[in-house]
Amino acid sequence: MEYFSNRRTIRNYKPEKVSDSLIDSIIESAAKAPTCGNMQLYSVVVTKDDAGKKALAPLHFNQPMIEGCSHVLTICADYNRFARWCEVSHTDPGCDNILSFINAMTDAVIFAQQIVTIAEMNGLGTCYLGTVSYNAAQIAEALRLPEMVIPVACVTVGYPDDKGEETERLGLDAIRFDGTYPELTDDDIRDLYREKEAYEPNKKYVEENGKDNLAQVFAEVRYPRAMNEEFSASFIEFLKKQRFL
Amino acid sequence: MEYFSNRRTIRNYKPEKVSDSLIDSIIESAAKAPTCGNMQLYSVVVTKDDAGKKALAPLHFNQPMIEGCSHVLTICADYNRFARWCEVSHTDPGCDNILSFINAMTDAVIFAQQIVTIAEMNGLGTCYLGTVSYNAAQIAEALRLPEMVIPVACVTVGYPDDKGEETERLGLDAIRFDGTYPELTDDDIRDLYREKEAYEPNKKYVEENGKDNLAQVFAEVRYPRAMNEEFSASFIEFLKKQRFL
Repeated sequence: MEYFSNRRTIRNYKPEKVSDSLIDSIIESAAKAPTCGNMQLYSVVVTKDDAGKKALAPLHFNQPMIEGCSHVLTICADYNRFARWCEVSHTDPGCDNILSFINAMTDAVIFAQQIVTIAEMNGLGTCYLGTVSYNAAQIAEALRLPEMVIPVACVTVGYPDDKGEETERLGLDAIRFDGTYPELTDDDIRDLYREKEAYEPNKKYVEENGKDNLAQVFAEVRYPRAMNEEFSASFIEFLKKQRFL
Repeated sequence: MEYFSNRRTIRNYKPEKVSDSLIDSIIESAAKAPTCGNMQLYSVVVTKDDAGKKALAPLHFNQPMIEGCSHVLTICADYNRFARWCEVSHTDPGCDNILSFINAMTDAVIFAQQIVTIAEMNGLGTCYLGTVSYNAAQIAEALRLPEMVIPVACVTVGYPDDKGEETERLGLDAIRFDGTYPELTDDDIRDLYREKEAYEPNKKYVEENGKDNLAQVFAEVRYPRAMNEEFSASFIEFLKKQRFL
């Protein structure tokens, strides 16, 4: 429990590279994670050379973790391999639909999180880059992902150069419900977020962004509607291109 | 590495119940897993009483794990709490779109896998039920999930009553690529699946199902096109109902 309760995301890495054999053994162990019908509907593209990172960096809005880390792991929902296997086995894969994408995405994220846990338990630092869904089509182009493959998680890995920041979490009463989802009043909602709003670094964050409250920073600065809608439109186009929609 | 390389899914559980406090502390530690912008776009509904399990069982095609386990955990992609928080904070959540669903689903699956790992490392057995996506709308009704909440992982938890079955996995060369996704020939594909097809239990499985090869069992018996398409149509309807599409 100790490790899990105290883990932190690491965004700064030492220049020292992680060995390929350690990365491989992490990936190999992570592949023992649960997977839909043992189909392993995922793959991971490993980027470690400077040219590859330079090509990925702008697609992740130049977040410094890409060029600063040892290995960039782009984990993909992958029905391509399975579909090709069906074709050479003279059967119809039947996976050009959203349910198949959901299955593959679930598999891929489970696999990604298992990689993260194993890496962290082996003394490495990791960071997910949510930008993977914003520019999925462009990342696919850079990594030459074929049809039926969609990048769903990007994880940077390296030796930690700091301890990472502590981040507060919502209380158990906000995220765990017994039997059924409760009907929450506006006051209940305010109560669930009260501690988060009172947390000093969050109060500072609101001030720095010139907003009235923390929710506004999220909804207006970090994840504004116009951005969500723009990237949703391109994600839907890409789902169609990859034949899941 | 030891635990991760040897873990197995557990489908049979002892009658002994897991304590609620252990379940809660697993959930609490799992909530320290990475989450998109620290928004925690997930929630978990815990079902432990017989009536609740009886209601869920048919929605999971009466897989015996539901009634046989100690606790059923339905982990949801949840933008409801965040959206309500934005509303009481006088700002537009802007999350009625597919990108927001993808963010929340990623968060929820990471959280689910963290629960699974912590539970297993504490001596519990777990099993994911993929049926959660097949009957998402009906499961949402049974658990009274509000708008902007979609169940994305169902995990049964209990004390193991057997050691679980060993399952073979594809080799590293099938799932890990360097720099870019390779162009694979039909023969490459056959090579990647050769060991899996030669694995004794899989050969038996093909025979039992009266098929020519393993891919046909997957594509024609377990995940046939008609089934995938039927559940895709209902999943898309449900995404619309929950306002993500």
